[in-house]
Amino acid sequence: MRRLLLTLRFDGTRYHGWQVQKNAVTVQQKLQDAIQTVTGVRSGVTGCSRTDAGVHAKMFCCAFDTCSPLSGESMISALNANLPRDIAVYRCIEVPRDFHPRYSALGKRYRYYVWNSHSRNPFLEDYSLHLRWPLDHQLLDRAAADFVGEHDFASFCGSGSGVKGTARRIDRFVVERDGELVVFTVEGDGFLYNMVRIMVGTLLEINFKKRPADCIPEVIAAKDRGRAGATVPAKGLFLDEVFYPKEAYGDFNQNKGE
Amino acid sequence: MRRLLLTLRFDGTRYHGWQVQKNAVTVQQKLQDAIQTVTGVRSGVTGCSRTDAGVHAKMFCCAFDTCSPLSGESMISALNANLPRDIAVYRCIEVPRDFHPRYSALGKRYRYYVWNSHSRNPFLEDYSLHLRWPLDHQLLDRAAADFVGEHDFASFCGSGSGVKGTARRIDRFVVERDGELVVFTVEGDGFLYNMVRIMVGTLLEINFKKRPADCIPEVIAAKDRGRAGATVPAKGLFLDEVFYPKEAYGDFNQNKGE
Repeated sequence: MRRLLLTLRFDGTRYHGWQVQKNAVTVQQKLQDAIQTVTGVRSGVTGCSRTDAGVHAKMFCCAFDTCSPLSGESMISALNANLPRDIAVYRCIEVPRDFHPRYSALGKRYRYYVWNSHSRNPFLEDYSLHLRWPLDHQLLDRAAADFVGEHDFASFCGSGSGVKGTARRIDRFVVERDGELVVFTVEGDGFLYNMVRIMVGTLLEINFKKRPADCIPEVIAAKDRGRAGATVPAKGLFLDEVFYPKEAYGDFNQNKGE
Repeated sequence: MRRLLLTLRFDGTRYHGWQVQKNAVTVQQKLQDAIQTVTGVRSGVTGCSRTDAGVHAKMFCCAFDTCSPLSGESMISALNANLPRDIAVYRCIEVPRDFHPRYSALGKRYRYYVWNSHSRNPFLEDYSLHLRWPLDHQLLDRAAADFVGEHDFASFCGSGSGVKGTARRIDRFVVERDGELVVFTVEGDGFLYNMVRIMVGTLLEINFKKRPADCIPEVIAAKDRGRAGATVPAKGLFLDEVFYPKEAYGDFNQNKGE
């Protein structure tokens, strides 16, 4: 038995997130189906995170155990031939048996895209939130910095998560503008259910003067979901990168493409 | 009567190109339908080019005459509310009555995208050609420079175009790599039917050693479609920008977004 780590991209538009559910199509299910077709055996695949319905991934990591003798390149080709067009594996490496896509990760980076224009963008309809009113990305960037650090993020945890501890560490949160596209980039050691979408929603309420620009520390301190802003739509959110210790598993964050 | 110039983006995947056809859905038809809904009058819309089925546009210009008193901003909002999600107007300005989207243009820029990777990219399936074998973008860039200048491009004109003169001027043709994405950028005063797609197809045959690297001048000189390469698929092609004289029509190439 070998443990293989797969890295994939998926367009989450058609999926109810990563994790297998009854009566809903998920990325995990599609991948397990493809693995079964390729190896002849039904294997459970463990993901680096549950992603919500509609969220996309430029780099999603998952692992499974197999007796298949296929090389990494052959496994990639065989899986991609059996996956739908909106899911594609681009890396397959063998990892130690104690590797776990979630617990071995040092952290993750998410990006949230807002198309900030008077006009829709046909190419970004499924990949961004469209907001007509001007965003002040410098104001948003300053407010976002207040998230950085180790905090109890209970105010930014969607209900129904079932998680016990709500302390997380945010290493970086910046807001940048590229023409009419405003990009929220956040890195941290882990994220609660809906956490990025609630953080972005709260920042947007600052932009629209529904909250003072310096409110983030108070909202964090309240530890009350009711004090934070609305959850922004899933379609603008991308899991952008998952970080693993290079010394243990090799530098597979390099050349991730795009 | 005023002449209005509309600038739009469209995802060409679902359309049989710009120009109205019997028994096929086109962008022109969708736009004329929307204008009729908004103004109450059926108006003919003149485009800056016929684009082929499946080709996309980040900047497409077209004009129509109307008695509608709507402001530019209101016209944009009203049209977008009546257009499908894969077509969106982002600029509407009044132009002189002698303005013609095609004949007033100084030139155009097209881009062709190749996803050059062992793995599919779910986000670029409809917007690029996927090639697994490595492209040498420096070799391609050197060969592409041979297209620059004023030439008779009959060798690069798809059959059935019905056009008389085949002389065109290419001002710039570069090939660049951004990770696994290889981008062909070509600017010129005008383009024949399928011309960009045949030029890219011929360059790719140089990459794959089917032709010598210095063959382009000979292929041009032959004035024979049979001497050039295959026509690459439409889905990788974008009309990127249309150039008009600033002094005559204002600087509407600025702030085109994205």
